[in-house]
Amino acid sequence: MRSDLSTKIAKSAEKVNCFIEQVVDSESEPKVLYRASRHIIDAGGKRLRPFLVLKTCKMMGGREEDGLPTASALEMLHTFTLLHDDIMDQDEKRRGVPSVHTKWSIPVAIVAGDLLFAKVYEAITKHTDTKHVKPKRILQVIQEISEATILLCEGQTKDMMFEDMETVSEAEYFKMIEGKTAALFETSARCGGLLGGATKSQVKRLGEFGRYAGIAFQVIDDVLALTADEKVLRKPVGNDIREGKRTLIVVRALERASKIQRQQILGTLGNNDASREQIRETIKLIDSLGAIKYAKKLAEKYIKKAKKALAKFPDSEDKEDLINLADLIFARQH
Amino acid sequence: MRSDLSTKIAKSAEKVNCFIEQVVDSESEPKVLYRASRHIIDAGGKRLRPFLVLKTCKMMGGREEDGLPTASALEMLHTFTLLHDDIMDQDEKRRGVPSVHTKWSIPVAIVAGDLLFAKVYEAITKHTDTKHVKPKRILQVIQEISEATILLCEGQTKDMMFEDMETVSEAEYFKMIEGKTAALFETSARCGGLLGGATKSQVKRLGEFGRYAGIAFQVIDDVLALTADEKVLRKPVGNDIREGKRTLIVVRALERASKIQRQQILGTLGNNDASREQIRETIKLIDSLGAIKYAKKLAEKYIKKAKKALAKFPDSEDKEDLINLADLIFARQH
Repeated sequence: MRSDLSTKIAKSAEKVNCFIEQVVDSESEPKVLYRASRHIIDAGGKRLRPFLVLKTCKMMGGREEDGLPTASALEMLHTFTLLHDDIMDQDEKRRGVPSVHTKWSIPVAIVAGDLLFAKVYEAITKHTDTKHVKPKRILQVIQEISEATILLCEGQTKDMMFEDMETVSEAEYFKMIEGKTAALFETSARCGGLLGGATKSQVKRLGEFGRYAGIAFQVIDDVLALTADEKVLRKPVGNDIREGKRTLIVVRALERASKIQRQQILGTLGNNDASREQIRETIKLIDSLGAIKYAKKLAEKYIKKAKKALAKFPDSEDKEDLINLADLIFARQH
Repeated sequence: MRSDLSTKIAKSAEKVNCFIEQVVDSESEPKVLYRASRHIIDAGGKRLRPFLVLKTCKMMGGREEDGLPTASALEMLHTFTLLHDDIMDQDEKRRGVPSVHTKWSIPVAIVAGDLLFAKVYEAITKHTDTKHVKPKRILQVIQEISEATILLCEGQTKDMMFEDMETVSEAEYFKMIEGKTAALFETSARCGGLLGGATKSQVKRLGEFGRYAGIAFQVIDDVLALTADEKVLRKPVGNDIREGKRTLIVVRALERASKIQRQQILGTLGNNDASREQIRETIKLIDSLGAIKYAKKLAEKYIKKAKKALAKFPDSEDKEDLINLADLIFARQH
């Protein structure tokens, strides 16, 4: 079942890649701009957001070609945020390759991100067939995407502000990731539904599925950033700690820590000079406080909520794929 | 006549400002994000692009309220590019105030620009009344804006590349500013037309008006950057020289210069350590080569071409305003 889903994801990813290759052609001029825009897209990624668009569109009775421009657009939107986030977070690696600002420069990474963002809207308006999807629906899709991007910007700003705060509550953390990650998953599912012809209440439920799955995705991401094999992760383990990111795990560990333990964690958190050994020790401490286990449990809870949001839809292969996708998000190793 | 136009521009600017204040509320959270997004908008600006949208919309028989969201959106789009360009060009001042990355930080300026860009599309989709403007027309407007932004990104990249080139031809210069400046003027006029109900060929002619006026605007901008009163300009005179910008004036001067003069110009161009005196001398030399006069002449030619593009439209107050706008662009002092 799981490997069957992986094949399906890979197949849809191929179509999305093909579409993106057409709309962001690396041979366009100026070449540096187009190559920089493609760099992180070409470096990999699972294309889960496009898959979510295509699946929800199909589940609601839509044609794949009606979902494809928006599915690809959401991957470009995601990539645009990665390019800009990497500058802001000073991340030197992404998907096993140098980040765009590291390989080229900050100006190139800014403008390449901007290009991808513009391409989002060009792709949807130019390539969605208004004979099959009503223009009003397409406008709704564009509004959804814009509102999600606004939440993303708010989330990214909060994420940066958190790095300078000593205490971040679990509620603040969840509000932040709802913008930073969950909004795009939610929008993907909602847009797929809209393009497939879903009713208002169906769109709402699809959005809930996307949001809960997105929250779980981010929490698992935070877990993997501390526990995964570095080769699989394709970036340094514990980077989040060095950058001072307030992940759910860190928030929980700080809540649970004794005064001395708290000082030890805060001494490593956001400390650029922290040694690999020091980071390893801090991760061990965080783990001993039960924070990683706690995060996994919470992610599991959100996966359950996501699946529950699909309960009222009639059974179908597409619905089963979405349920399996939720399980995959929880069980993934990278 | 001219002062009458100024009053009209000021009145339309007030409506645009009011609209933007509603959609980018400086009291929204996180405050730093919203205040940074508003900073350069609040510092002034003539709102010429929105005026162009509103005028062309009205000239084609549209209602002002149908043009207002797109007019305001184009000002937000323009501001988004200013925020990001200022980072890329390391400009510390804009409209007499510190640029966003100088007042806050590069990460804040990046994300504030991104927010404004997302607000462009939110404003149009959320606030354009589909009872008065057909959804298909709104989709066309969105496509126009996205394609213009793609040209802007290409233009900005070329502009940066030019700084590292010894020779830039006049043709290359014009191709660059067609993206960097003219595209947004062209799009403003085309979108106004689309929203007002213009036919395909009318939209085309309006676009020509915008493009030619936009080219003239940029050339005059380059002239003012070397010749204007610093207090009126609200940024250091000769900044372009220090940054090594290949403006039409510089391109022309280098073509006309003797070997020794050429070396003198290239020695100051892009030289961060150039003294004010050295810059003043270089401007004098450039002027003595007839380059400033040449640029003014070319700008005048484009203003004529712009006005000619309006010839076939029936006479009206709105048409006269557009003609006067073209003259104002040529005669402006800042």
